Amino acid sequence: MARKIVEIDLSGHGIRVEECPEDLRLLGGRGLTSTSIQRETDPLCHPLAPENLLVIAPGLLAGTGLSSANRLSAGAKSPLTGGIKEANSGGTAAFKLARLGIAALKFRGAAPRGRCLGLRVSREGCRLEDLGFLAGKGIYQTAEALRERFGARVGLIIAGPAGEMRMSTACLSVTDPEGEPCRNLGRGGLGAVAGAKGLKAVIIDDEGAEFRPHDPEATKALIRDFAARLKAHPVTGEKFPKYGTAMTLMNVNKLGGLPTRNFSAGSFEGAEGLSGDRLYETISSRGGQYAHGCMPGCVIRCSNKYVDPAGKAVVGSLDFETIGLLGANLGLGDLDQVAELNKLCNDIGVDTMETGAALGVLAEGGLFAFGDFPRVRDLIQEIGQGTPLGRLIGSGAAACGRAYGLDRVPTVKGQSMAAYDPRAIKGLGLTYALSPMGADHTAGNAITLAVDPTDPRVQLEAVRELHWKYTALDTLGICIFTGRVSLANPELIEQAVRVITGWAASWAELLELGKRILHRERDFNRRAGFTAAHDRLPGFMLREALPPNHEVFDVPQADLDSFYDFDREGQLD
Amino acid sequence: MARKIVEIDLSGHGIRVEECPEDLRLLGGRGLTSTSIQRETDPLCHPLAPENLLVIAPGLLAGTGLSSANRLSAGAKSPLTGGIKEANSGGTAAFKLARLGIAALKFRGAAPRGRCLGLRVSREGCRLEDLGFLAGKGIYQTAEALRERFGARVGLIIAGPAGEMRMSTACLSVTDPEGEPCRNLGRGGLGAVAGAKGLKAVIIDDEGAEFRPHDPEATKALIRDFAARLKAHPVTGEKFPKYGTAMTLMNVNKLGGLPTRNFSAGSFEGAEGLSGDRLYETISSRGGQYAHGCMPGCVIRCSNKYVDPAGKAVVGSLDFETIGLLGANLGLGDLDQVAELNKLCNDIGVDTMETGAALGVLAEGGLFAFGDFPRVRDLIQEIGQGTPLGRLIGSGAAACGRAYGLDRVPTVKGQSMAAYDPRAIKGLGLTYALSPMGADHTAGNAITLAVDPTDPRVQLEAVRELHWKYTALDTLGICIFTGRVSLANPELIEQAVRVITGWAASWAELLELGKRILHRERDFNRRAGFTAAHDRLPGFMLREALPPNHEVFDVPQADLDSFYDFDREGQLD
Repeated sequence: MARKIVEIDLSGHGIRVEECPEDLRLLGGRGLTSTSIQRETDPLCHPLAPENLLVIAPGLLAGTGLSSANRLSAGAKSPLTGGIKEANSGGTAAFKLARLGIAALKFRGAAPRGRCLGLRVSREGCRLEDLGFLAGKGIYQTAEALRERFGARVGLIIAGPAGEMRMSTACLSVTDPEGEPCRNLGRGGLGAVAGAKGLKAVIIDDEGAEFRPHDPEATKALIRDFAARLKAHPVTGEKFPKYGTAMTLMNVNKLGGLPTRNFSAGSFEGAEGLSGDRLYETISSRGGQYAHGCMPGCVIRCSNKYVDPAGKAVVGSLDFETIGLLGANLGLGDLDQVAELNKLCNDIGVDTMETGAALGVLAEGGLFAFGDFPRVRDLIQEIGQGTPLGRLIGSGAAACGRAYGLDRVPTVKGQSMAAYDPRAIKGLGLTYALSPMGADHTAGNAITLAVDPTDPRVQLEAVRELHWKYTALDTLGICIFTGRVSLANPELIEQAVRVITGWAASWAELLELGKRILHRERDFNRRAGFTAAHDRLPGFMLREALPPNHEVFDVPQADLDSFYDFDREGQLD
Repeated sequence: MARKIVEIDLSGHGIRVEECPEDLRLLGGRGLTSTSIQRETDPLCHPLAPENLLVIAPGLLAGTGLSSANRLSAGAKSPLTGGIKEANSGGTAAFKLARLGIAALKFRGAAPRGRCLGLRVSREGCRLEDLGFLAGKGIYQTAEALRERFGARVGLIIAGPAGEMRMSTACLSVTDPEGEPCRNLGRGGLGAVAGAKGLKAVIIDDEGAEFRPHDPEATKALIRDFAARLKAHPVTGEKFPKYGTAMTLMNVNKLGGLPTRNFSAGSFEGAEGLSGDRLYETISSRGGQYAHGCMPGCVIRCSNKYVDPAGKAVVGSLDFETIGLLGANLGLGDLDQVAELNKLCNDIGVDTMETGAALGVLAEGGLFAFGDFPRVRDLIQEIGQGTPLGRLIGSGAAACGRAYGLDRVPTVKGQSMAAYDPRAIKGLGLTYALSPMGADHTAGNAITLAVDPTDPRVQLEAVRELHWKYTALDTLGICIFTGRVSLANPELIEQAVRVITGWAASWAELLELGKRILHRERDFNRRAGFTAAHDRLPGFMLREALPPNHEVFDVPQADLDSFYDFDREGQLD
């Protein structure tokens, strides 16, 4: 099936649909967003200017029931970092776009300020809709209204009030199989890029559409086989479904790497109350849902539906990074509180991680006391209200650090770290420092590596390889949580590519593709003004020993500087 | 007289005085601050971290009564731009430091948070003083208290509340001959660097000190000759004393380059009310003082003492850049209002220019209406109060633009432009884009050039040469306002260097020195992560035609990229 690329010019110059050009034919997800941006976006443009390109692309393998292979990528020049950005999420959008034969939506230009538009995508084609009645509305209300207007089964991608206000930490929210808008394209401010264009939502109606894999029978067999293998593995088959991503929290805490009170400690006295065990007990005893799949076909089902003591829905999927940064990092040890904050952030449409990091910085700056839940809740509400303080918080941790005159700010390239302190888990320090995306754990989550996380000398090779692998997975649209099965048995990945697309790529070739995409991203950043000076952790992490294990970040600088010394020549095209 | 360098370690490791090393012997002012920083400061350090070095240095020629040759430089890694910063000012501090034989004060380390220290410099040596009783106090009150405690004739360099709060736009204030703290080391946040170190003030008592120029008799003769020539020139002898720096306002307005309402227009309907004529009339009719000299010996006397209708002092020297950015750029056309805002900024210790630019951005963002004086006054007061909004404003125009999601932000390298729109006065666009300091008109104020300001093709050579000249002047400590006499007759400069220091430098050699210092600054920035991508004006100025003359910034990109193609090799040492 020939895939299509849809070009939408929001300045009023219409919509153009064309066949995916030959040189993009074997790209999806991150590979497609980053390649498009590297080729077409002026690296010196302002991220909120009309010339910034917003690309939304399902992973190359999306559209089938293959477990954990329906991830959606979005990319642009980031308002937060000023560099290239790809964020990916679960939800149903990628699956539905792929079924409609769409390889990418590319948004250019900008509607006149004040317009609030939706793009409806269906078998009938693509059409812009006036969504003025939803201007300024929260993401939950927007999702409900759009499902009411366009049908309960549409998939949605939504910018919240934060995006409309063009805040640097605004995310895009994607609906899950139940229609809850809670799977976030979280990082780097892609919601603000949408907001600057006047794009409130993408509505995807795949009614009547069908995805035809290259080899339907073999695909069916692979879907069964892959699901069985994931279910058979103790992590993907048992721990993830039961404890969700929070399963890692006590481990990170034990390693002394759980960001606590603005990264001033690596273990939190209230960690038990935030643990995967506690999450499971709480959800299961209250009649919430664990083992929830965020994407069609997923058997890992690390997602959940968190409920309050009365069993009433609070938020779709309370996850580790959110728990770490809105919990321990703010001195909060109560899952109910974190869930409420998560819901608020989701509704406003801001990245929970950046928000937690920003608030941690402000607490250190003296704006409020760590552990003051009502104040944290009020402050997050201010983001949605667009008060000056809310806008400062919505500008991210680096902006808050600047405003409060602090040099203890846990960011790289202007983006906050995830819920792993890189002094204790040093491989993540490499990932934070070197990812073209800024401090982004999903670029290469070294917590999964077999190497000693505290040994500064053994990280380079392993982390680098992880970046190649993850970039390949992000391009295919395969969830990185499959890694213990898929990366351990890359013939499964080869097989998936072959039966779904017909492309007989070896795993080595797919890794080469990952490398090439990383170099393209890196090239964009270089032209946007990034140098080795930006591939560094904040200075305080090099000199301030992190309790309780008194670690500093001591990976040799030479390792940082040589990270991209791989296959450099001829890798851009 | 062998000059001394004083090293002050505020972390508690004492004060060390040493003779100026041979290789710095012929450097002063900007040459000395920038060379020290380029050699000693880790370009990757956080500007507010203890390892950032703050250097204060009188110009090489300071200490005599030579007109306009007693300027003071301060430098550090800038909290605003992240690059090297030199700011210079008038006042008495450079004169007094030079008389005490001090070539530079170099501050390292940081006192424990909460300490508030002063450095007292006198013939008896240097001593740290506890100034805890002045913590959080405004600059005027601080100056008064310090003069009371240390003597009415001391020279002062003071950080205000903004500096103590470590805001990126905090300045350092220097007292003028009457002891009014109003000569600002304004740009780039040097007050925050002092604040982060716990340094509230430098108190300079030159009682009993004497400066011995190399050739005292020839120096006396030169002082007379230079003064006579400055007085004989119509600009330095008549216009500057009468109209002050505001003499340029109507000219800039006529060129269509006066920033109006966040750089959305280049001429302001209320310009007459802000003009040099109006300033002169107002001050003279009310019994204020025009033709005030900000430095010992200055005969240009472009400074003034602005008074209210009752003749009561408001602010020492209302100047063009302040009038442009706190006036026209905010839609305010009343000098009394601008003077009041100027006084407020001075007391808080923030850069008036960056504050005006930041407020212009916030007005465009919808926080308040252009022209709303009471609101502007309240907002500036919030800076001093350290409210969240005040801290956002104190973070500068770029931070405000980020918070309010705007792409029309008049900054380069994170620093706001001065009161010349570079679309109409294109040479200033080169200066803004290329100065290592960010958008800093004093790096090369092209308004003084004889070339057509609207012709994009004739700026490069002239502006580049201006940067060399100004860098040399900043090193010698000669005010750039002497340019019409000193740069037109460089033998006067050669003579000044010879009779005061004994160095028989030719003007060509001094220009070489200027080039070398620019390359050192550029080298620091390169290592701090700056590239050609940062040598650009904001995109909106390239596409948005500026009323009334409908100019865009169209200096060829190749000119920007070749600006530093001069004497590159071997110029660093």
